Amino acid sequence: VIADAAEKLLPAPGGPLRGKRIVITAGPTHEPLDPVRFIGNRSSGKQGYAIAAACRRAGAEVTVVSGPVSLPAPSGCEMVRVETARQMLAACEELMPSDVFIACAAVADYRPALETKHKVKKERGGLTAIDLIENPDILREIASRSANRPGLVIGFAAETDDVLGHAESKMKRKGCDWIVANDVSPGRPAMGGDQNEVTVLGFEGDKTLPLMSKDALGDMLAAMIGRALGG
Amino acid sequence: VIADAAEKLLPAPGGPLRGKRIVITAGPTHEPLDPVRFIGNRSSGKQGYAIAAACRRAGAEVTVVSGPVSLPAPSGCEMVRVETARQMLAACEELMPSDVFIACAAVADYRPALETKHKVKKERGGLTAIDLIENPDILREIASRSANRPGLVIGFAAETDDVLGHAESKMKRKGCDWIVANDVSPGRPAMGGDQNEVTVLGFEGDKTLPLMSKDALGDMLAAMIGRALGG
Repeated sequence: VIADAAEKLLPAPGGPLRGKRIVITAGPTHEPLDPVRFIGNRSSGKQGYAIAAACRRAGAEVTVVSGPVSLPAPSGCEMVRVETARQMLAACEELMPSDVFIACAAVADYRPALETKHKVKKERGGLTAIDLIENPDILREIASRSANRPGLVIGFAAETDDVLGHAESKMKRKGCDWIVANDVSPGRPAMGGDQNEVTVLGFEGDKTLPLMSKDALGDMLAAMIGRALGG
Repeated sequence: VIADAAEKLLPAPGGPLRGKRIVITAGPTHEPLDPVRFIGNRSSGKQGYAIAAACRRAGAEVTVVSGPVSLPAPSGCEMVRVETARQMLAACEELMPSDVFIACAAVADYRPALETKHKVKKERGGLTAIDLIENPDILREIASRSANRPGLVIGFAAETDDVLGHAESKMKRKGCDWIVANDVSPGRPAMGGDQNEVTVLGFEGDKTLPLMSKDALGDMLAAMIGRALGG
């Protein structure tokens, strides 16, 4: 009865992505240094949440694996909340198989080699450097699965120089099918703002989209995914 | 006329802190590593914002120097928004003199020695460590001013072990008048939550307060400040 009532509140599951399972990562990761400090990044999560909401509106079953953000959950999506890159990878692997995987999160490439249990005290000799180790590469891990690889794996490339060149080499290196490339230089709209301007590499050649709202870009990507899946 | 209309929306400026100017820092600082990455900390800003609102309710003229948080500005307070410890210090110095200075922000002790203009690329040889340099010490700078030192300088000590011992030595080292000490160990209420449990060192001896909401602690501190200023 409760399920019936909930069903009535949800939009009818029609649309081009009906019956498709989509897993999408969103937001930053926080890599702890000690109980209070972390290395983070400026991802607001807005673009990932907008894509998740748009795919849901297009009829997909959507799970968002989200780093720490201060946004309301996108309507109708299942949420898995994580902090670190390692937690994000584990959550994504647990959610496989899916039809589509979208790696929109700004995952920290590195984490502190050592996480101390107590707050590091300045007066105890101080800290002169943080040793780093590489985090797992979530996009490459999912794109290179031998079993249960999603049919369509989409990455994002946030770059500050030679945006398309870096994005193209990232697509090859990671083995994903599409890369959504954007320019995150200071003063550009992407970071933290409500608009985005991207080029989608791999979708029917490269497709450069005009500046639009993150919500509109979500709808556009949902439509492109529907077309690619033959929906 | 606009000022008159605004005046009517504000609470009557009565209360024990009437006519007092209070500057309070709140939230974390973010210390950039490159255009997208930073070193941050888990301060939500809730306690600082609650103290600011309480001091305002008690009649003070309050300016909040706030790091990046996702909270609405406390009602009736002037806001100065900053990112880094150096920006926070500069903003506080510009606001001197004041009757009271409250250093509630979780200021990063260290920042990356080098901030690169372009995003650091993993594939260009990678990053094995972040070199750090010490940030200015805002509490000590303000507490040790020879001219225009606020009459009452209050610091906060977020500790994970030997809380009172560390807080007491911090009070001496910084030269502040009171220290509000709390335990930020994982599982304790302070970090990110709505409650806090603190000991105020320096106020009529040490005063250990019971667990209470951050709003209630704000009102309690506003009352203690009123008493100390003879209001």
